[in-house]
Amino acid sequence: MPGVLELLPAEQVTFRRMLETIRAGYERFGFVEVETPAIELADVLLTKTGGETEREVYFVQSTGARQQGLEPDLALRFDLTVPLARYVAQHEQQLAFPFRRYQIQRVYRGESPQRGRFREFYQCDIDVIGRDELDLRYDAEIPAVIHRVFTDLEVGPFTIRLNNRRLMRGLLAGLEVADASRQSAVLREVDKLEKRGVERTADALVALGLPGPAVDRLLTTVAYRSTGLEDALATLDRLVDEYPETASGASDLATVLEAVAAFGVPENAYALDLSIARGLDYYTGTVYETTLDDHPGIGSVCSGGRYDDLAGYYTSSRLPGVGISIGLTRLFWQLRDAGVVGPSPAVTRVLVTLIDPEGLEYALSVGAQLRDAGIPTETRPVPSRLGKQLKYADRVGIPFAVICGEDERARDTVTVRDLRRGAQDEVARRDLVSHLRTLIDQE
Amino acid sequence: MPGVLELLPAEQVTFRRMLETIRAGYERFGFVEVETPAIELADVLLTKTGGETEREVYFVQSTGARQQGLEPDLALRFDLTVPLARYVAQHEQQLAFPFRRYQIQRVYRGESPQRGRFREFYQCDIDVIGRDELDLRYDAEIPAVIHRVFTDLEVGPFTIRLNNRRLMRGLLAGLEVADASRQSAVLREVDKLEKRGVERTADALVALGLPGPAVDRLLTTVAYRSTGLEDALATLDRLVDEYPETASGASDLATVLEAVAAFGVPENAYALDLSIARGLDYYTGTVYETTLDDHPGIGSVCSGGRYDDLAGYYTSSRLPGVGISIGLTRLFWQLRDAGVVGPSPAVTRVLVTLIDPEGLEYALSVGAQLRDAGIPTETRPVPSRLGKQLKYADRVGIPFAVICGEDERARDTVTVRDLRRGAQDEVARRDLVSHLRTLIDQE
Repeated sequence: MPGVLELLPAEQVTFRRMLETIRAGYERFGFVEVETPAIELADVLLTKTGGETEREVYFVQSTGARQQGLEPDLALRFDLTVPLARYVAQHEQQLAFPFRRYQIQRVYRGESPQRGRFREFYQCDIDVIGRDELDLRYDAEIPAVIHRVFTDLEVGPFTIRLNNRRLMRGLLAGLEVADASRQSAVLREVDKLEKRGVERTADALVALGLPGPAVDRLLTTVAYRSTGLEDALATLDRLVDEYPETASGASDLATVLEAVAAFGVPENAYALDLSIARGLDYYTGTVYETTLDDHPGIGSVCSGGRYDDLAGYYTSSRLPGVGISIGLTRLFWQLRDAGVVGPSPAVTRVLVTLIDPEGLEYALSVGAQLRDAGIPTETRPVPSRLGKQLKYADRVGIPFAVICGEDERARDTVTVRDLRRGAQDEVARRDLVSHLRTLIDQE
Repeated sequence: MPGVLELLPAEQVTFRRMLETIRAGYERFGFVEVETPAIELADVLLTKTGGETEREVYFVQSTGARQQGLEPDLALRFDLTVPLARYVAQHEQQLAFPFRRYQIQRVYRGESPQRGRFREFYQCDIDVIGRDELDLRYDAEIPAVIHRVFTDLEVGPFTIRLNNRRLMRGLLAGLEVADASRQSAVLREVDKLEKRGVERTADALVALGLPGPAVDRLLTTVAYRSTGLEDALATLDRLVDEYPETASGASDLATVLEAVAAFGVPENAYALDLSIARGLDYYTGTVYETTLDDHPGIGSVCSGGRYDDLAGYYTSSRLPGVGISIGLTRLFWQLRDAGVVGPSPAVTRVLVTLIDPEGLEYALSVGAQLRDAGIPTETRPVPSRLGKQLKYADRVGIPFAVICGEDERARDTVTVRDLRRGAQDEVARRDLVSHLRTLIDQE
């Protein structure tokens, strides 16, 4: 089907490793897993918040319901945030707050197939949800998680860019854009600045009715990116001097930036970036984007922010939160395109070959021995030419082959062949596991 | 939404552990992971093989396609076998054969909601696919995988029951049911024997036109379950004496049973069971069911078999294979019902508490220290009453709390509290990781 990313086994190994790295990072920070159904009631998904109705939604209908001529009342989730809202509202009494959930599942969008747009893709989300309130310092934990995860993913240097939507609204008020919905429209344009460049953004802002001097001042201000924590804090001070309306947003942002340092995130990994706006009004405070320093063209690989109320449509409890999402399918696709990731060797470490039918029991017992020792091992229950079996191992990326010929069986040994180095050794059965463990560790 | 199993976090930990146990077992035997999209072209899913069209399929249609008044051309997979067939046919040139794939994903069925019937559930499948041929001995590896996985799942003793559809057709030929489609109908009734009992099955067979004596002889024969390998082989010999038409199926089954032993599966874990028929004509040789000895009411927890050709609708290559499926969602639900599984302690091992605002940096650096050592740790970035924080940890199942009060900070120590035992110790920062590791290991 067009619009999906289907991987061959050797790429799936890489993908799985990235996914498990993200999961391990999230769990390291004490986030707990939630999984929700891909299918939800359409009424639940299509509340009017956050512009989801504009998105292309996939509706779902069973054979039976179609035959009855009913309108579809089910749909596939298009993100993990709306299902989270429904989940928290539904199970609120059984959850402890702050509720720290991670969720790694596929989401679905009825996109027209085009390069880099997927109809089905993984999102890897974390959110911290408070009941009634959630302290600002939780916003500072998010960059610590991002830092851990992207360090562990080993995709090169990256920068976690922070800003604050309230500060931006203050700035716009200072530039005499007072109306909230006009501010939202301006922020949506600023959000596209990196993609479109200064000139086209300036044109768009003028088209929104902003006076030329205000456009200039805005674009000059948002061009700022900090070089370190001290620089960021000093810049916030200057901004408040120039635009007193930014005071409360700037104060929040300063608190967050200082706490990010306390979480142990190195100064070169994060920055205050006044061009980060995020398109959605859903975000009300801190916003995040993360970019790979060596691959600016990829854009943000991890985005999110603070919101005032997660589940207003489903519960009367006020549930403020903060979270981020990694679009793993797209990230993998882009990193593969950039040559940063590719196929991996097989998870299977050993192929136990079989050359003669008399060797079957011996070979199978060698296989069982290796599996009992925790070594992923494929066995061959039917004999074939050794060369053919070694070629197979090489093709699927199994690094070691074990040969149990008549001579080896007579001596209670096996021959272990290192397929990449071409070397081989005859090893006693009782030494086989430790021998292979050494080879595997050296790999 | 009705008809789905949504878990609270403490149950999700158990579910995830079971899923990862199955994955690890599959990988231990050298199966490689494949993931396919949940959405496929409806034409691809709805080929006429295997009775899928009778199943309730979920059709999928985007907002845009609906607005254009089109018929849905997409659907959600209802199993993992049809997507595998499409995958192998599509990527045949890039795969090495025998192709050993595992796949653990959700599938979708437009069921009417009722107890124990799920609309969305996990399947955990393995299949070995040959090109042109696949030796019978591959059928013997499947019980070895089942044995590994269900041993590791720790759900009590189980029996892997084997039979052979060709042997059953031979038996029916011997009972003068010669017509293949009539044989299929009889086998579908035999498949329901365990659920329905002898009497109702006998009635159903008579209704199919079988003479009373043939019904008696059939039901007497299929009542057999072996007590060990020798017993099974002897019974197969006697069966061939009585019904020469069973000779070729019996010979295949004997070869498989002997090889199962060579794979190291203990004799008490598997049995020849002549009542195992599997409902689907798709299966042409060996068939498997696995039941939990202490929970016969749960029925088969892992079923499958040998088939002649995986992907006849998608490729002209002949692709025989053998495989099994574990319906994990249903299994989890049943085991929970039976009290065998339940909520687990949190993956998070430590809560670093915060009592006074001055302790923030110290507490966060303790948290970072534990995470760097690989210990999943939640930190509190805002102070609150210690009792409240300990109650939270207890509620979410975090076993250890770390307290860094003013005194501890002055001494460069922390207090570690074991929440279940109620004990606590003051520990130097440099000894904290090893101290906690010991506690965690003892848990």
